Amino acid sequence: MINPEFMHRALQLAERGLYTTTPNPRVGCVIVSPEGKVIGEGFTQPAGQNHAEIQALEDAARRGHSVEGATVYVTLEPCAHYGRTPPCCDALIRARVGHVVSAMQDPNPLVAGQGLARIAAEGIHVTPNVLADEALALNRGFVKRMTLGTPLLRLKIAASLDGRTAMANGESQWITGDAARADGHHWRARSCAVLTGIGTVLADDPQLNVRAVQTPRQPARIVVDSQLRTPSTAAILRDGNTLIVTCIADPGRHAELLAKGAEILALPARDGHVAPDALMEALGQRGYNEVLVEAGSRLNGALLAAGCVDELLLYLAPKVLGSDARGMLDLPGLERLADASQWVFDDFRKVGDDLRVLAHLSKA
Amino acid sequence: MINPEFMHRALQLAERGLYTTTPNPRVGCVIVSPEGKVIGEGFTQPAGQNHAEIQALEDAARRGHSVEGATVYVTLEPCAHYGRTPPCCDALIRARVGHVVSAMQDPNPLVAGQGLARIAAEGIHVTPNVLADEALALNRGFVKRMTLGTPLLRLKIAASLDGRTAMANGESQWITGDAARADGHHWRARSCAVLTGIGTVLADDPQLNVRAVQTPRQPARIVVDSQLRTPSTAAILRDGNTLIVTCIADPGRHAELLAKGAEILALPARDGHVAPDALMEALGQRGYNEVLVEAGSRLNGALLAAGCVDELLLYLAPKVLGSDARGMLDLPGLERLADASQWVFDDFRKVGDDLRVLAHLSKA
Repeated sequence: MINPEFMHRALQLAERGLYTTTPNPRVGCVIVSPEGKVIGEGFTQPAGQNHAEIQALEDAARRGHSVEGATVYVTLEPCAHYGRTPPCCDALIRARVGHVVSAMQDPNPLVAGQGLARIAAEGIHVTPNVLADEALALNRGFVKRMTLGTPLLRLKIAASLDGRTAMANGESQWITGDAARADGHHWRARSCAVLTGIGTVLADDPQLNVRAVQTPRQPARIVVDSQLRTPSTAAILRDGNTLIVTCIADPGRHAELLAKGAEILALPARDGHVAPDALMEALGQRGYNEVLVEAGSRLNGALLAAGCVDELLLYLAPKVLGSDARGMLDLPGLERLADASQWVFDDFRKVGDDLRVLAHLSKA
Repeated sequence: MINPEFMHRALQLAERGLYTTTPNPRVGCVIVSPEGKVIGEGFTQPAGQNHAEIQALEDAARRGHSVEGATVYVTLEPCAHYGRTPPCCDALIRARVGHVVSAMQDPNPLVAGQGLARIAAEGIHVTPNVLADEALALNRGFVKRMTLGTPLLRLKIAASLDGRTAMANGESQWITGDAARADGHHWRARSCAVLTGIGTVLADDPQLNVRAVQTPRQPARIVVDSQLRTPSTAAILRDGNTLIVTCIADPGRHAELLAKGAEILALPARDGHVAPDALMEALGQRGYNEVLVEAGSRLNGALLAAGCVDELLLYLAPKVLGSDARGMLDLPGLERLADASQWVFDDFRKVGDDLRVLAHLSKA
């Protein structure tokens, strides 16, 4: 007997790892006794530490409960391979649980289905695909990286009602209000990395770290800086964990930035700029699941034109900036309405006085 | 004893006149017996016919009920003056009702408060301001015209996610989907007039009438056509009820358009265009409460710059049209972010695949 309420609870637990599990997925686990009582709960810990299933098994042991014959609700198929930790499916088998209910399959094509198969082979009942959509929503970035090798790219744009992001002189602080800026920090905190362009670094000198919400982990910071113009005094270099992506070799500038604690990655160029597809692959190789882009209209447009953008996170301020002000996206060359990219609205809500709109690219 | 539920019911009735009461306000009325039973209901009929109170009194009579001592819930203070119909307050006094509950005061500064005062002077109990905000929301246009002499101007814009309304070549049909276009017809139907510019007439040749929703009344159509360039074959001239507003005198063109059934209004010019303030006053003098603007970026920008726009009705399509495409508003000259006009979001919802956003100008 499956009760989806327990999977909802497991999803809630999974969400507690929103800021911390990278490069692993956010997973939650609830263990329910044959009498229908929750006897253990857990969610995936930071990389190298326990996965959700182990946390829940340990929780049950700590609370003095036997898990023999129990039903385990887990939001992702238990892993079947040795990574930094041993396979969770083996731990569940050893614990002699009676039933494993999983929300979605492991997206890693090398192991997909094997976790549940090994559990079933031991005579344990398995039920896949319970609340699969909800589980997927928590880990779209992880799934994309596992299946395509590249991260989910989410473009954050703060604009006026008439679609403008800055005045003609570049003034853009602040179009949106405090609540929207704090909300933006939540999206930074859940990202593996925050990516910007050299134009934004030179114009605004942002830190791009998480300040407005509590997080035990700061996302990596990435500057797409094709010509290696990042000043060694840039705020984004403070406190380390910053990657400069370039397409030129300039030993002097490399040394200068390395001395500031930055990491430098040289990638192939296209038209004098870092090639977007090479960038995406490099980000995937670094284990980034979700990358938040907070850049200017040029990099926004280049990433969109290259088909790299999966989601839009748009904050619309209740202002009209007029036609001298700058647009959201430098994306020329579209001639026909039929050529416009198509998106799907996922969510919209007031955040302070502003309107937040989430959309994803339509694959149709 | 007042029960606000009856005022809610009166507001529902008022809304039934959304498409039809112009130039009068939308008003609803519920008569409740001393035993707390609804014995009569009504809402304002088309101009020259019964107001809501008379409809409700006649309804009670038709249903065989005496209204003596009854409580009358009416969403606007009963009128105290002879217009096209006699004063409603006299009818309520003659009917010897016991209590009149009103949602909001008559905004006409010449009569405000007199209706309730005359009723109270006859020993009838009166209670003002019950659900005043809800009542005002139905009649903002009427209130603005009564107090300032000009209509409420609502700017309708259909745009892409990146704030673009047409491709560089002018292609704009259709950015938004069927549901948004049908919803737009609802906003036409509730308007006294739909206003456009000569640019839109020449580019799109729209009819600007109500087709996608049922209405017994078509709004007037207005073309701001400073140089009188409307072709005599324009679709907007069909079926009459079209006003051409110009600032030139050209007897030949006047005669040609008059022959097509159009009305022509010559107004003062400013910089070669119809002066926005003169236009607003003329629209108010014609008894228009709500005017829906469906124009291009030039007229949109001119009306906004002149401070004529009260509300924005924005349909955002889940598309990205890019930086060659046309902006929403031709509104140059803003240099500082602090100069941007401030708005307040009132409502936002999905309409088909599109997002509809309503905002009003912040008076702060």
